[in-house]
Amino acid sequence: MTSSHALHTDLYQLTMLAAYFHHSEAHRRATCELFVRRLPKNRRFLVVAGLQQVLRYLEELRFSDAQIEALRQIPGLKKAMTPSFVEYLRGFRFRGDVWAMPEGSIAFENEPLLRVDADLGEAQMVETFLLSTINHQTMIASKAARVVLALKGRTALEFGTRRTHPLAAVDVARAAWIAGFEATSNVEAFDAFGVPARGTMAHMYIMAADDERSAFTKYAKVFPRSSYLVDTYDTLRGVQTALDTVGDDVTAVRLDSGDLATLTKQTRALLKERGRQDVQIVVSSDLDEYEIERLIADGDFDAAGVGTRLATSDDAPSLGGVYKLTAIDERPVAKLAEGKVTYPGAHQVYRVFRDGRFALDWLGLTREPSYDFVDTTPLLVETMKGGRAIGAYEHGGTETLAVMRARCREGLAALPDEVRAIGGRTDRHERFYEVKPSPALLRLLEQVRAERAH
Amino acid sequence: MTSSHALHTDLYQLTMLAAYFHHSEAHRRATCELFVRRLPKNRRFLVVAGLQQVLRYLEELRFSDAQIEALRQIPGLKKAMTPSFVEYLRGFRFRGDVWAMPEGSIAFENEPLLRVDADLGEAQMVETFLLSTINHQTMIASKAARVVLALKGRTALEFGTRRTHPLAAVDVARAAWIAGFEATSNVEAFDAFGVPARGTMAHMYIMAADDERSAFTKYAKVFPRSSYLVDTYDTLRGVQTALDTVGDDVTAVRLDSGDLATLTKQTRALLKERGRQDVQIVVSSDLDEYEIERLIADGDFDAAGVGTRLATSDDAPSLGGVYKLTAIDERPVAKLAEGKVTYPGAHQVYRVFRDGRFALDWLGLTREPSYDFVDTTPLLVETMKGGRAIGAYEHGGTETLAVMRARCREGLAALPDEVRAIGGRTDRHERFYEVKPSPALLRLLEQVRAERAH
Repeated sequence: MTSSHALHTDLYQLTMLAAYFHHSEAHRRATCELFVRRLPKNRRFLVVAGLQQVLRYLEELRFSDAQIEALRQIPGLKKAMTPSFVEYLRGFRFRGDVWAMPEGSIAFENEPLLRVDADLGEAQMVETFLLSTINHQTMIASKAARVVLALKGRTALEFGTRRTHPLAAVDVARAAWIAGFEATSNVEAFDAFGVPARGTMAHMYIMAADDERSAFTKYAKVFPRSSYLVDTYDTLRGVQTALDTVGDDVTAVRLDSGDLATLTKQTRALLKERGRQDVQIVVSSDLDEYEIERLIADGDFDAAGVGTRLATSDDAPSLGGVYKLTAIDERPVAKLAEGKVTYPGAHQVYRVFRDGRFALDWLGLTREPSYDFVDTTPLLVETMKGGRAIGAYEHGGTETLAVMRARCREGLAALPDEVRAIGGRTDRHERFYEVKPSPALLRLLEQVRAERAH
Repeated sequence: MTSSHALHTDLYQLTMLAAYFHHSEAHRRATCELFVRRLPKNRRFLVVAGLQQVLRYLEELRFSDAQIEALRQIPGLKKAMTPSFVEYLRGFRFRGDVWAMPEGSIAFENEPLLRVDADLGEAQMVETFLLSTINHQTMIASKAARVVLALKGRTALEFGTRRTHPLAAVDVARAAWIAGFEATSNVEAFDAFGVPARGTMAHMYIMAADDERSAFTKYAKVFPRSSYLVDTYDTLRGVQTALDTVGDDVTAVRLDSGDLATLTKQTRALLKERGRQDVQIVVSSDLDEYEIERLIADGDFDAAGVGTRLATSDDAPSLGGVYKLTAIDERPVAKLAEGKVTYPGAHQVYRVFRDGRFALDWLGLTREPSYDFVDTTPLLVETMKGGRAIGAYEHGGTETLAVMRARCREGLAALPDEVRAIGGRTDRHERFYEVKPSPALLRLLEQVRAERAH
């Protein structure tokens, strides 16, 4: 990412910013929360991801002269670009506070994943980038976690780069690794984030050679101890060719087409016959958690490469995270429109555990009478103060991808069984976990409703 | 985009490159073609997009010292990073030729969108980035074109940034504009590509004010002649408030929730009553081509903001473009696996028109006996020679987004009616247009099959 993503936003953030500024309202104090109103179909929980990039964006946010010049060219904005507003934009920084669920956390509907307390202009301006980043990566991490659960300990490999935007692909690899994937094919994700990178050969490599035998032999000379792609011409003959030509250097075989259930069982039998129980069977080709459950039941494999359906989250291709004003100048506000009610005030999520498993989440106020929730774990933590990431969240701080990944593993282990289950693919939205507004929050909502009625 | 996306690739491209290099095969001549085997469900045609970025990537591709150092750190690659291979990587450039369908072209299944003729190592190395870029943007442009067709002349606005990766969002706006959208909310897309940017206010702006009236009044002072968001509290009352407080400065009202069919008709009646036939009605909120067709039948509006379902192409969230070796050292090759047959050789697509409409595409060889296709239009054009974009495709050349957009408009107008139709949302893949392999191509395929059988 380049140094400032100031223009990676919706134009209306800038028109609203200008309107606030010209009415001297940009410095009013605002609280905004980012949450998902309803889990997508086929999702029973979310895995939060993208926070680190959000914090970096907020720290680095500023308008360059060139960017300000670009804004002047926009017909809808031109009028508002007075010298004083340009001066304001030049000095614009995000100086607010951010409380958030750390990456790798498990979340549910109507819970703030992130809360911004900042000047109104700043809180407004950052909405789009925060939504894009958190929506995209949380969508991917949530899908990836289901794949990991479906694999029941087998290895998950991320292969989706070619089926999503080239730059989005890097964050797909990042989110998948946080959710428990073992490695990615994406080299940039290795360089940028240290996600382990894996890969050996494609069909093109085999096809460019005179025959499969020659392709394998040549590959082994450069890369002894490798995984071999065996399905270019005939899968079982390919396995035999790999064992015959490369022998002990075959550590794995990859099957990428055909009836994988039958072929993986036949491959396993063949490997056993040849005394090669050490060779791993890797499958790929349009896999997802549903197909993996079927293959575990009917086939026999050790690792799965998951691409298209992970990188696009194809059974739930968007996450509808929203970012709503919940207080202005300390006054709690709420949207009261039918079916789109939001809770007023600044919130905290209090998770109740029973026998080591998640039992219930309370959506409460940040200043809940604490005796109500003595045994709960508050999920939102302070990550940024006055525009600077703090503690573990500082640049180079202890909040590493490995920490996020461990957090996710722990969270997945604590899911109630029905939340952890994959379930059949459905078009309905179902709820498997309770998020309960606290009594104090419900009282506040009634109060806001009553005021609005006047 | 930064200067080189060399690491935005799958690791296996690099292991294969190393294997080719160490066996002195990197300089063999290869032909690869990028095509979509089968159109996605709910798609009857494709709109090609992403070529310009592909050409820039190819021109700028090189490995920096830091990137080479990163590659050394990858366990699976380390062994191959000999001094001579490092030297090869340092000097690595793409020096091949590219023939492609220009952006905005209409394409169908099994037709090459792009052909690379290059040294084997170069042709291999670029696969992932080409697939990511063309798959993503063609997916978006194809969806966007359906929205444009459904709107039957009404205005399409792209609002999807918050529901996709922040950097992918810029290319979503680009692809949508090529396909006929009028504008985007994405400011970076304006700055990077000149896509017109639009936007005025969100619910947060209304909620931050004391009331709707005050919000509208203040907005009008900064931005006279604007579009007003009217559904924060009560849509029809919102329309009245806008007209009462802002008067002639209301150019449009936006409705973002509720029963849009009924509300748009009521809004139109109200506007008429007030003599404000000049005010446009803009709708948004989870729209797509299906919902738009319903709203045209049951409601009354002038423009639609389309976001989530465009930016994720939610009824077909991936495009399965593949990139296959079709010739090596001038020898045509093909994948003969069941259900995944590819055609050998270098191809051209010859489109037959009848009465100004597309009638049939021939998939032929580049060197077809020309008398067979005298009256056809060849779709692939030469865009890059020896690693440099040529003619219209040069940096700053005449192939602008406006040209691509005009090409798309022309193509959409020439679609046969059943290809242009939206149709109901389905899970089946259906075919509405014929792509026919030429007799010469079929002969070549039989020849390759016969050779393989020996």
